[in-house]
Amino acid sequence: MASNVSTTMKKYQARLEKRLPEVFPKKLSEDRTVVASLYSLLAGGKRIRPVLMYMFADMLSIDLDVIDDFAVAIEMIHTYSLIHDDLPCMDDDTLRRGKPTCHVANGESFALLAGDALLNRAYEIIFGAVKKHSYTVNAAWFLADCAGINGMIGGQSIDLDSEGKKIDTNKLCELHEKKTGALINAACQIPYLIYAAQSGEDKKLYNLIKSFSEGTGLGFQIKDDLLDVQADESVLGKSIGKDQRDEKSTFVTVFGESNAQKMLDDTYNDVFRALDGLKTMGYDVQDLRLLSQLLQNRIQ
Amino acid sequence: MASNVSTTMKKYQARLEKRLPEVFPKKLSEDRTVVASLYSLLAGGKRIRPVLMYMFADMLSIDLDVIDDFAVAIEMIHTYSLIHDDLPCMDDDTLRRGKPTCHVANGESFALLAGDALLNRAYEIIFGAVKKHSYTVNAAWFLADCAGINGMIGGQSIDLDSEGKKIDTNKLCELHEKKTGALINAACQIPYLIYAAQSGEDKKLYNLIKSFSEGTGLGFQIKDDLLDVQADESVLGKSIGKDQRDEKSTFVTVFGESNAQKMLDDTYNDVFRALDGLKTMGYDVQDLRLLSQLLQNRIQ
Repeated sequence: MASNVSTTMKKYQARLEKRLPEVFPKKLSEDRTVVASLYSLLAGGKRIRPVLMYMFADMLSIDLDVIDDFAVAIEMIHTYSLIHDDLPCMDDDTLRRGKPTCHVANGESFALLAGDALLNRAYEIIFGAVKKHSYTVNAAWFLADCAGINGMIGGQSIDLDSEGKKIDTNKLCELHEKKTGALINAACQIPYLIYAAQSGEDKKLYNLIKSFSEGTGLGFQIKDDLLDVQADESVLGKSIGKDQRDEKSTFVTVFGESNAQKMLDDTYNDVFRALDGLKTMGYDVQDLRLLSQLLQNRIQ
Repeated sequence: MASNVSTTMKKYQARLEKRLPEVFPKKLSEDRTVVASLYSLLAGGKRIRPVLMYMFADMLSIDLDVIDDFAVAIEMIHTYSLIHDDLPCMDDDTLRRGKPTCHVANGESFALLAGDALLNRAYEIIFGAVKKHSYTVNAAWFLADCAGINGMIGGQSIDLDSEGKKIDTNKLCELHEKKTGALINAACQIPYLIYAAQSGEDKKLYNLIKSFSEGTGLGFQIKDDLLDVQADESVLGKSIGKDQRDEKSTFVTVFGESNAQKMLDDTYNDVFRALDGLKTMGYDVQDLRLLSQLLQNRIQ
């Protein structure tokens, strides 16, 4: 079974990887900001957000050519956030995806600019998509909202502000819903928003996709926090045990490892229940189910 | 006469200033990234880009309610670029608009996030504008293009890469066309793009606006470089003589002060010639002429 999802994932990953080297104009290929941007963008990674987006698009029979720009953009936004998070004034990380972080390899100033360039270029691509397909404008707006102060940046801000402080469960959940969850929500819900703009809204469908994406976002973060204490550094490709050292509030540092494991299991129960609901509606969710099992049990 | 442009500028500045405090959701007013963003966004400044945009919109009889989102967004993009440029890993500046720079007042990590938040939020606002008025999508795309690797970020990248190096005249011009010129181009041309989307293209009008905006962008940068050696630090509100110390390539450090002054005069001749052309076409350019005189002779 795992080979099925692996094949499906590889198909979508390959579709994305083919487009990523071309996101900047060819004539700027020697520009040092472009070089630094591509250094991080092409460093591999699981490409979970684009893969989820493609899977939901396929589930909803949306033309993948329309999705491509969104898949590329969400990965660029994710990558910029990693580059800026790794900077010395933030997490000061030196290892990412098994390679020196962007600023270690390209210098701090070009890493800063590379983050800016990736974020801005993501929206250039999305405005281009909206020019071609005006019905994607709501999905475009939602992507920006999820990436901004109401979403990922907002979560990062709470995270920074809570370093070295005790924060309560509500704040911890808000932090992670925004920091990790928002962009995963965007990945899953953008295909629905494009579907709804063409075929009309479907409240039941929306609620099930929302339930899946919220569970997947939360589950992703809890698993990340667990891996920080459980993983093998050489497999994970980034430093281990940093959360405790940095006095970060995570599901493990706040609730303890065994409680965090239980929360992960409960969260995935919700995820699989949402998939059952989608199946009952007649949608093919086999790939999504296999991907969820893989995410729940991942070792990196 | 100067009082006329002053009154006109104040009208547009006031229109902008009224909207700037409300660019982030009210419920996030205590978020430290929002606080840091507004610290810089509300620190005053000449608001040249929004003022130019409003003036051209008025000249072309475009509803200013449609322009507001673009005026706000371009000022947010300009402000984010200043915050990131001032960071220790970039220009390491401590004084901006007569106040401590964003990272001095709010810490480096929140200044970094504030820049990201302003950039992202600018596009959230622009996607909202495109949702309301679909004919603005081309203007929206152009704004993003001017702010990105083909424009402002690209110029910043060349600037960084040329520190301590001798660069030729072509590279110096490309640097400034992108770094300062691109966003001024956006300010002047966005009203035209909105006009053209509604009323059809007008090549002659476009060429005159382009000639004005390119001259204004170039003139703005030459004047900035001159002020770096001529201005009074307390009037300018930022450090003086830094270009020479930082081994920056500027019109003054490359061509010398008197040549730079002559280039400024030549550039403004082009600007006023473009305005003459617009007047011949029947457009009211009185405010733009007064603003250009003011920019040519500014002391800060």
